[in-house]
Amino acid sequence: MGTIYGVGLGPGDQELMSVKSDRLLRTGKHVAFFRKAGRKGQARQIVNGMLRDDVIEFPMEYPVTTEIPLSDPRYNEILSAFYTEVTDHLIALAKSGEDVVVLCEGDPFFYGSFMHIYTRVKDHVPVEVVPAITGMSGAWTATGAPITWGDDVLTVLMGTLGEDKLVDHMAATDALVVMKIGTNFDKVVRALQTAGRYDDAWIVQFATMPKQTVTKLSEMTDKVTPYFSIIIVHGQGRRP
Amino acid sequence: MGTIYGVGLGPGDQELMSVKSDRLLRTGKHVAFFRKAGRKGQARQIVNGMLRDDVIEFPMEYPVTTEIPLSDPRYNEILSAFYTEVTDHLIALAKSGEDVVVLCEGDPFFYGSFMHIYTRVKDHVPVEVVPAITGMSGAWTATGAPITWGDDVLTVLMGTLGEDKLVDHMAATDALVVMKIGTNFDKVVRALQTAGRYDDAWIVQFATMPKQTVTKLSEMTDKVTPYFSIIIVHGQGRRP
Ligand SMILES: C[S@@+](CC[C@H](N)C(=O)[O-])C[C@H]1O[C@@H](n2cnc3c(N)ncnc32)[C@H](O)[C@@H]1O
Ligand SMILES: C[S@@+](CC[C@H](N)C(=O)[O-])C[C@H]1O[C@@H](n2cnc3c(N)ncnc32)[C@H](O)[C@@H]1O
Repeated sequence: MGTIYGVGLGPGDQELMSVKSDRLLRTGKHVAFFRKAGRKGQARQIVNGMLRDDVIEFPMEYPVTTEIPLSDPRYNEILSAFYTEVTDHLIALAKSGEDVVVLCEGDPFFYGSFMHIYTRVKDHVPVEVVPAITGMSGAWTATGAPITWGDDVLTVLMGTLGEDKLVDHMAATDALVVMKIGTNFDKVVRALQTAGRYDDAWIVQFATMPKQTVTKLSEMTDKVTPYFSIIIVHGQGRRP
Repeated sequence: MGTIYGVGLGPGDQELMSVKSDRLLRTGKHVAFFRKAGRKGQARQIVNGMLRDDVIEFPMEYPVTTEIPLSDPRYNEILSAFYTEVTDHLIALAKSGEDVVVLCEGDPFFYGSFMHIYTRVKDHVPVEVVPAITGMSGAWTATGAPITWGDDVLTVLMGTLGEDKLVDHMAATDALVVMKIGTNFDKVVRALQTAGRYDDAWIVQFATMPKQTVTKLSEMTDKVTPYFSIIIVHGQGRRP
């Protein structure tokens, strides 16, 4: 039987991939990745130029993203059917003896889409997860200041959370990371203001990629925040 | 002028180092690392067999660790003098044109000792930080289950925090990581119990290293927790 590898790509810079991910990518015959219909795919673009000439690609195109609200029960049903369908293909490949590399932005087990494949295949075929540098590590490194000192508390929040929950957690933590910003940008900014963290917040777009930008949130002029954006508030803990 | 590189080593497995860290380590002439007096050094052991034959090593030996309580003002003074002393040496090397690689466990800007060097050298000589896979990514990958789903909140706590603070944060989060356990083990366990998180907690020792162990905390028989231990409680958020 072949193995399904969930290969973490790190934040975007190819040099920041692990030696192991690098090897699996360069030698893999079957490479699968998620993408929105009609797009190249974020993960696929990160590995441009690294794959074998004779690679067999398997793009897994999301059936819905924003058209149906998260709260609609159909959202889960459609997505679930989609995961089952792509997973059946991956399991069939592995059962026929082929290894498959599944591309994962950042670290696969940290808010990654690969997790939905993982839970569906792990009892049927061998699967191995290769951890990677998270997008947030890339982002705080880009700010040129450490994220946490001494016994600082670090909280990671998704911009998709409700505003009240955002405020509570933002106010209670020392260091802060906010991901999945996009259309939640205005809500996240209001929450940071209410929690008194807005003036210390940074926004990093495309961390470690050629078009990386690092800006104090309060000095941001361009309000369009791409998919690859992370907000950072540094901890200020004990330091000798 | 030479550059001081803060090179993240990742959780311990040499294959999980980035392509960039791997290259800097194998080609670096000057390699500096922290260690306790009389010990080999955790970071130094991770790179065994990777360094140049003619490498010039600079072990930076901590003057104090547990002998003086953290609260004693002398603790900060002694540590601060130590950092100034080793930093002067690194700056002198860089000013003489030599690059220096400083070894950092996990990711340098995430609770790392390199941060104390970074703040002291950055205004004097060129310095570059190479992010890396954190110990916690290695740990949750080892548990075989994703750490966060959907819009789960992730909180990272140090075992050195007071028990009340530990309880409050443990109760308020979805997914949880506790680091720096060691002598704080009993306190951390009590806090997990009070917060109702004990039964879902895992402990990972030496993540990604040859002697890695993964155990449900409630089933742990050996009470000796090494320096390299992380407690994990997985998030249970939305999943289609
Ligand atoms: C579905 S989550 C995947 C996280 C990924 N598994 C990781 O370990 O970083 C997608 C979010 O990751 C963040 N992200 C990942 N890589 C990034 C990068 N290079 N720059 C900025 N944000 C990034 C963005 O906030 C984005 O909304
Ligand atoms: C001073 S902090 C350094 C954290 C490091 N910079 C990182 O990114 O993981 C030391 C703590 O990291 C955790 N740690 C780091 N690597 C680990 C590993 N491979 N296995 C278990 N714990 C680890 C332990 O909790 C330890 O007490």
